[in-house]
Amino acid sequence: MEARLQKVVSWLEEKNVETAFISSTENVFYLTGFHTDPHERLLGLFVFTEAEPMLVCPSMEVGQAKEAGWKFDVIGYEDHQNPWELIKEALHKRNVIDVKKVAVEKEQLLYARAEELLSLYPNAELVGAEEKLNQLRLIKDEREVEILQKAAALADFGVEVGVAALKEGVTEMDVLAKIEYELKRKGIREMSFSTMVLFGEKTGEAHGNPGLRTLKPGDMVLFDLGVVLDGYCSDITRTVAYKSINDKQKEIYETVQRAEQAALEASKPGTRIGDLDMVARNIITEAGYGEYFLHRLGHGLGISVHEFPSMSRNNDDVLQEGMVYTIEPGIYIPGLGGVRIEDDVIITKDGYETLTKYPKELQIIS
Amino acid sequence: MEARLQKVVSWLEEKNVETAFISSTENVFYLTGFHTDPHERLLGLFVFTEAEPMLVCPSMEVGQAKEAGWKFDVIGYEDHQNPWELIKEALHKRNVIDVKKVAVEKEQLLYARAEELLSLYPNAELVGAEEKLNQLRLIKDEREVEILQKAAALADFGVEVGVAALKEGVTEMDVLAKIEYELKRKGIREMSFSTMVLFGEKTGEAHGNPGLRTLKPGDMVLFDLGVVLDGYCSDITRTVAYKSINDKQKEIYETVQRAEQAALEASKPGTRIGDLDMVARNIITEAGYGEYFLHRLGHGLGISVHEFPSMSRNNDDVLQEGMVYTIEPGIYIPGLGGVRIEDDVIITKDGYETLTKYPKELQIIS
Repeated sequence: MEARLQKVVSWLEEKNVETAFISSTENVFYLTGFHTDPHERLLGLFVFTEAEPMLVCPSMEVGQAKEAGWKFDVIGYEDHQNPWELIKEALHKRNVIDVKKVAVEKEQLLYARAEELLSLYPNAELVGAEEKLNQLRLIKDEREVEILQKAAALADFGVEVGVAALKEGVTEMDVLAKIEYELKRKGIREMSFSTMVLFGEKTGEAHGNPGLRTLKPGDMVLFDLGVVLDGYCSDITRTVAYKSINDKQKEIYETVQRAEQAALEASKPGTRIGDLDMVARNIITEAGYGEYFLHRLGHGLGISVHEFPSMSRNNDDVLQEGMVYTIEPGIYIPGLGGVRIEDDVIITKDGYETLTKYPKELQIIS
Repeated sequence: MEARLQKVVSWLEEKNVETAFISSTENVFYLTGFHTDPHERLLGLFVFTEAEPMLVCPSMEVGQAKEAGWKFDVIGYEDHQNPWELIKEALHKRNVIDVKKVAVEKEQLLYARAEELLSLYPNAELVGAEEKLNQLRLIKDEREVEILQKAAALADFGVEVGVAALKEGVTEMDVLAKIEYELKRKGIREMSFSTMVLFGEKTGEAHGNPGLRTLKPGDMVLFDLGVVLDGYCSDITRTVAYKSINDKQKEIYETVQRAEQAALEASKPGTRIGDLDMVARNIITEAGYGEYFLHRLGHGLGISVHEFPSMSRNNDDVLQEGMVYTIEPGIYIPGLGGVRIEDDVIITKDGYETLTKYPKELQIIS
């Protein structure tokens, strides 16, 4: 953690920025090792070029911050206190109040907190910290990759549990409940997003909501799920057929599978990220389903389930060793049904490895 | 929904504000009936005094917005598009671009989006919309109360499941998984926050994390959970003893119970909200445990699990009929253990009703 903080300090020095105020739970975790979400309560990390950093959190979480390894100051505040007054005092004590530039996460910082900061630092301009933090987080280190691998293995396990739970008449929510039950029993406290289990025509909605739809022969079944493990996310999608499959469904499945495989094979250092999207999109378009692939190819994966890089056709950045992201092409035909296949991928020295390993050959569950 | 929108328009007119940009998932839901969370993707509702409102969301959610009953324009954007460019076009078409004041949720709006807004409206000043929206949401209507009652009954059921799952050797996560499994099978897709099940000394952390701690005779067990039903939240806490209880634990339980009961009995229209906190706090302080009750008495409850009113000792507002909030005093002794008891409460014409009904008499589970 201290090496990461040092990189932030060096960057601040280089940019002539005296202070950073980091307020997203993700970046506070990345820089302090303390993983917490105090919701509407203030959490913030001040990083200074001229003083030691200082963490602000609810008083009842101060102990946890220290247990997580935070060695510097913590300002704990109680619910009836205004944390900004305590911050003001602390800044005066450190003599770090006459500041011209404050780096903040503009994409995460709440406007009201920006106003508070600007009233603390009336002569300051807010500058973006996100680009630097995203860049630091973009390349995963060995320890991060280890956790991501374990998180992906648990996502594989989730699909396994889901497939095993398919029986005529079960509801989407029955299967979803079973998946999360087994994962929680393994100690998983948080899914990386709302688990999706969709049957039949409901697979035709890219962002459908699981409900009490029951399983019938001939349904496609789509699982999209992931876990948070030690602060890192996984994200897998698999689609299977229940009892039988018709020609149209099969054609859609095979098209998506080819698109996913092509994007995997294009994954290596130096590939333009936007091209990866286009490789998959072209296959789907040539098969006549282009209008049914409405979303980007995928997204970076790490502390956030959606982080950089964005696997979008207009992303001109290139893949680098240590990047972790999802590849998840899909075809969704409203009213009829859809297929998505998603893997978590890491870029290696000369290619890629998938972190998720659950099989992708078309399965017809009997 | 249209009546709610009309109230916002009237307020804008009254304040001489030409436009509101509402971007929190909660307030968009409150004003449109459309419940969605597109995460880092933009969701926003423009309300104008001089034109019909306009919703902005990812293109793949446009259909769901209409199904939810939204009758006005929707700007759907795809991942490779910049929604702000589409917004700019639409504003020009409507001729609502020369604006002096834009009302925004300062406590929710991301700074980068405020910058986008200010570049759309270079002559505008951002003014706070939260106070008005919080005030609209503060008093629940009949339909909202019905949903909150059902959500609370499901929280009661969650505790029931949890208590029934207590057996020597089970882990906190086993019990948590069982609770969520049974709730999901009833169709609940989302808990209103991370479910908490804590055993023994871990109950001594107000914000402890459930894990693989196993249950032993003599442990206190703390459940804190709630569900999201039709967009509304519930939130209950109960603490029980497993097999046996010692005198100290019993004294703590009874103190918390008396504090909770006193705050309930003080709940009626006209009571200063801060006094409610103090009524409970005084009982705990007189019993010698004041330093172990670190948080506020509770929080408003509705579309958000934490909303207005804040049940904090420095809140000078008074209770009004139709307010819904939690009462949740607690005593947490680090290393030893703790007790919290929490109900969801609605203010009636001349008093209160609890929405949560699970018994509060000290239970020793055998």
